[in-house]
Amino acid sequence: MSETLDGVGVTPLSGLGNARWYRPGEHPDPEDVTAADPETERERFDEARATAREELETERERTAERVGEEEAAVFDAHLQFLDDPQITDGVEDAIDDGAAAEAGVARSFDAAIEQFEGMEGMMAERADDMRDIRDRLLRILSGGERIDLAELPEGTVLLAERLTPSDTAQLDPERVAGFATMTGGRTSHAAIFARSLGIPAVVGVGDALAEIEEGADVAVDAENDAVIVDPDEETRERVATEREVDVRAERVETADGREVEVAANLGTSAELEGADAQGADGVGLYRTEFLFLDRESPPDEDEQVETYAEALDAFPEGRVVVRTLDVGGDKPVPYLDLPEEENPFLGNRGIRRSLGDDGDLFETQLRALLRAAAEGAGTLSVMFPLVATVEELDAALERVDEIASDLDEAGVDYAVPELGVMVETPAAALMADEFAARVDFLSIGTNDLAQYVMAAARENDAVAHLHDPRHPPVLRAIDRAVEAAHDNDAWIGMCGEMAGDPELTELLVGLGLDELSMSAVTIPDVKAQVEEIDTADARDVADRALAASTKGDVRRILDQES
Amino acid sequence: MSETLDGVGVTPLSGLGNARWYRPGEHPDPEDVTAADPETERERFDEARATAREELETERERTAERVGEEEAAVFDAHLQFLDDPQITDGVEDAIDDGAAAEAGVARSFDAAIEQFEGMEGMMAERADDMRDIRDRLLRILSGGERIDLAELPEGTVLLAERLTPSDTAQLDPERVAGFATMTGGRTSHAAIFARSLGIPAVVGVGDALAEIEEGADVAVDAENDAVIVDPDEETRERVATEREVDVRAERVETADGREVEVAANLGTSAELEGADAQGADGVGLYRTEFLFLDRESPPDEDEQVETYAEALDAFPEGRVVVRTLDVGGDKPVPYLDLPEEENPFLGNRGIRRSLGDDGDLFETQLRALLRAAAEGAGTLSVMFPLVATVEELDAALERVDEIASDLDEAGVDYAVPELGVMVETPAAALMADEFAARVDFLSIGTNDLAQYVMAAARENDAVAHLHDPRHPPVLRAIDRAVEAAHDNDAWIGMCGEMAGDPELTELLVGLGLDELSMSAVTIPDVKAQVEEIDTADARDVADRALAASTKGDVRRILDQES
Repeated sequence: MSETLDGVGVTPLSGLGNARWYRPGEHPDPEDVTAADPETERERFDEARATAREELETERERTAERVGEEEAAVFDAHLQFLDDPQITDGVEDAIDDGAAAEAGVARSFDAAIEQFEGMEGMMAERADDMRDIRDRLLRILSGGERIDLAELPEGTVLLAERLTPSDTAQLDPERVAGFATMTGGRTSHAAIFARSLGIPAVVGVGDALAEIEEGADVAVDAENDAVIVDPDEETRERVATEREVDVRAERVETADGREVEVAANLGTSAELEGADAQGADGVGLYRTEFLFLDRESPPDEDEQVETYAEALDAFPEGRVVVRTLDVGGDKPVPYLDLPEEENPFLGNRGIRRSLGDDGDLFETQLRALLRAAAEGAGTLSVMFPLVATVEELDAALERVDEIASDLDEAGVDYAVPELGVMVETPAAALMADEFAARVDFLSIGTNDLAQYVMAAARENDAVAHLHDPRHPPVLRAIDRAVEAAHDNDAWIGMCGEMAGDPELTELLVGLGLDELSMSAVTIPDVKAQVEEIDTADARDVADRALAASTKGDVRRILDQES
Repeated sequence: MSETLDGVGVTPLSGLGNARWYRPGEHPDPEDVTAADPETERERFDEARATAREELETERERTAERVGEEEAAVFDAHLQFLDDPQITDGVEDAIDDGAAAEAGVARSFDAAIEQFEGMEGMMAERADDMRDIRDRLLRILSGGERIDLAELPEGTVLLAERLTPSDTAQLDPERVAGFATMTGGRTSHAAIFARSLGIPAVVGVGDALAEIEEGADVAVDAENDAVIVDPDEETRERVATEREVDVRAERVETADGREVEVAANLGTSAELEGADAQGADGVGLYRTEFLFLDRESPPDEDEQVETYAEALDAFPEGRVVVRTLDVGGDKPVPYLDLPEEENPFLGNRGIRRSLGDDGDLFETQLRALLRAAAEGAGTLSVMFPLVATVEELDAALERVDEIASDLDEAGVDYAVPELGVMVETPAAALMADEFAARVDFLSIGTNDLAQYVMAAARENDAVAHLHDPRHPPVLRAIDRAVEAAHDNDAWIGMCGEMAGDPELTELLVGLGLDELSMSAVTIPDVKAQVEEIDTADARDVADRALAASTKGDVRRILDQES
């Protein structure tokens, strides 16, 4: 008999396959292993380290390629621990005292882990990294099978307690029918990657997931927030059927004729083709961090011009909205002096860092953007992240003016792009009138906006229920920004996760958004939704949602509509 | 000739005295000390540790008493490092190798510090603690004079690069004429303690402060944001004159007859008397953390009833607004399981934690409050911190109802207090209409509200310019909350730092606040301000500030008025 487990679907996709458990931390008790002579055990340890290094380097490379340098950086920490003399000496000492390599690894790492944990603070995180690398070594030493996530058999439904962003990045969408995890939420990084890779995924299923046996028939029905074990024939057919994706390459409008731009969020040039294939009208959020992270020096102006122009050429009839560099104390950029912060999400990041920039990173990026605007085929728009005050915006706009003058004087070919502001801080929503009067467009980043409006960090599971954009205060902040934009003749888009949820499309069109930008995989669904909307009905839905007291009320209003 | 250095005044006070530099980190080069025999050096090390322990215990106790257990907890970390076997073994090994105790301390601590720093993360902070304890030991070993901050000669103007909150807590307001520091901002904890202790203080003076020589004549003119070296006669008279404090014990109203309640913020019973002496109408923010922190088990119901009733008895004609327990991942409460969080200000804290409470901490506190409401003389009001959703508020109100029924059934004497919500999250400002419809009052916590609206942590110097409540978006959030409160027949107060700034009183009265609650020392000034206000003029100031684009514009509007 089939059984349905509830979770949180993170992609509008479903898949059917055979369950495969991923338990990277599993290995035999290291103290049960009989030791050979110390020399042999030392060799075993050295070989295990070499294997671990190879694995890590492969995974690192794959992550960098598929997802980005930023996420790949976690592997550097693992590689470092592998060579930490305090740890390796500890292992070797234990071996010299007669322990097997397994026991040596376990004891030396455990001592370090305990030390880290005793210290409180962000140590917990480092301790997690250490546990990961310890378990990897123990798995290798035990000859345990390595589940290479990139090489899973076709039709695998991967099950795990949790998947790290880098785990997710290894997955091959051609082979994996879907995945389900016990923990995680809609806006976790693993979920975002799943959407970006187009993998059916249900997260946050809880302990019930552990009951599913290896090899079981499992349907991952992310559209219905469910994992179904031993699905019946009807479910199998529904889920297994190739999802009918009706890609609309052309722009769409509502049933009563209001055009809504539907664009893609992306972070690397490699994703341009996929966005086009899903029918994106353009790029609504082009993150530029990948250009800057994990390298010894920043990209020079010419390299940047080439990258931005490539994006513009990919959408000759469309618009590409580039966000200027958005880094802060929680991101590793070796050539920037970014101190650790106690609350990095409330720290020196985004436009704040760009304006305080001692070097000329911001200037170089703006020069490159102005040059690319003249060179590429499509329309370039540039927006500034995390703006909270008119002073910051004025300063950024002044920098653009200065650079235009410089290029002019130097006789360099350039064009001033459309300029805009991201509405991510509550301050920006409250000051949207002043911002809109100064720029061409606004773009709402709902992930950050929700986290600041609700004072709930998006990476913190304990407050996950709060950073949901369907909470009425978030809707009210959006409404205020949209009204202010239109009153001041600016267009306004949305590029947070909320924009890609087809269940919210009517609400968002009702709120008056002119553009929606999302992970490419959700574009066909959202375009289909747009075409069925009547704007007067949509406005009515929006008005009722704005008058709602709770998220539950909003959900009920939306359910009535669907 | 006199010289004026600009800084940020944190109290409406001024003082005149002799400069005394506080440089707790100074000591001779430890490697220059000639070692005696190992036995003697070991004894010297042991004695230095014993002295350090005594000092730390005294300072710990004084801090707990004057400021609170929460701030005293930092000393526990220091005491721990003093006995860390890894460190003490390191010192003793070095001594056995022929080093002096000084060199042993320096080498062993430096090795640990380096290790911590190499690990990134919150380690920087731990490394700071280690540096503090290393320097303390080196100072003691060198026979260096210990500046006991509690025993400074009368008329001392203390100068320092920075003062920790616990340094500030040591200061005796009877002896210290004032202090000035190179770093720090208006809402830093050291500044808040200075206000609470009534010490003239100017912070954020920068490197120029270092030019002031030991013993120089210095005026700390916090009212004018200045430190004046060798002040001329006129300045001396102005500054040295005992500030005329015209304490108004009675309630005050504006020139045209609108009553404004002026109350005190406090955190311990010990502060009740001082609040009354400054003419507080009541208590606008009674923090209850001190009851819960740094103890092995939570206070029981009876202990709490007694504490709350004591506050009510101190203001028999007034109101005491008690905030329910407000702790999160950044506060040490041994009997609560509070995991470390990456962004604790956006984490599981305030009402979120109370509602998720497995134990019955919240219930016990509410029971104690309902019982105290019947027992104490004054009017009790209870408010919930960090509310972001109507769901949370409804759940909290339901708990109060349940407890009232329980007490009723048990025949225990109780009264249901006035109930309210703190407006600290942008969500609360945006949903203030729904909140005000459900409770008797709202109270705006501007420190947190500004930090969330601006997405700028208050403890982060790099973004200090952003968490200023004079930024127009913060004023707009306040305006929205005030209007929503009055539309729904609730009164609304303010208990953030902003409320105690006499320069902002007219603006706040203009915005329509019914109550202002502040550090007791600023009450006389604010009451005096209130009496000079014409509400129509004040509303005009508020309207102009709300229409301003920038903080600079707001400052200019306020300057025109003063």
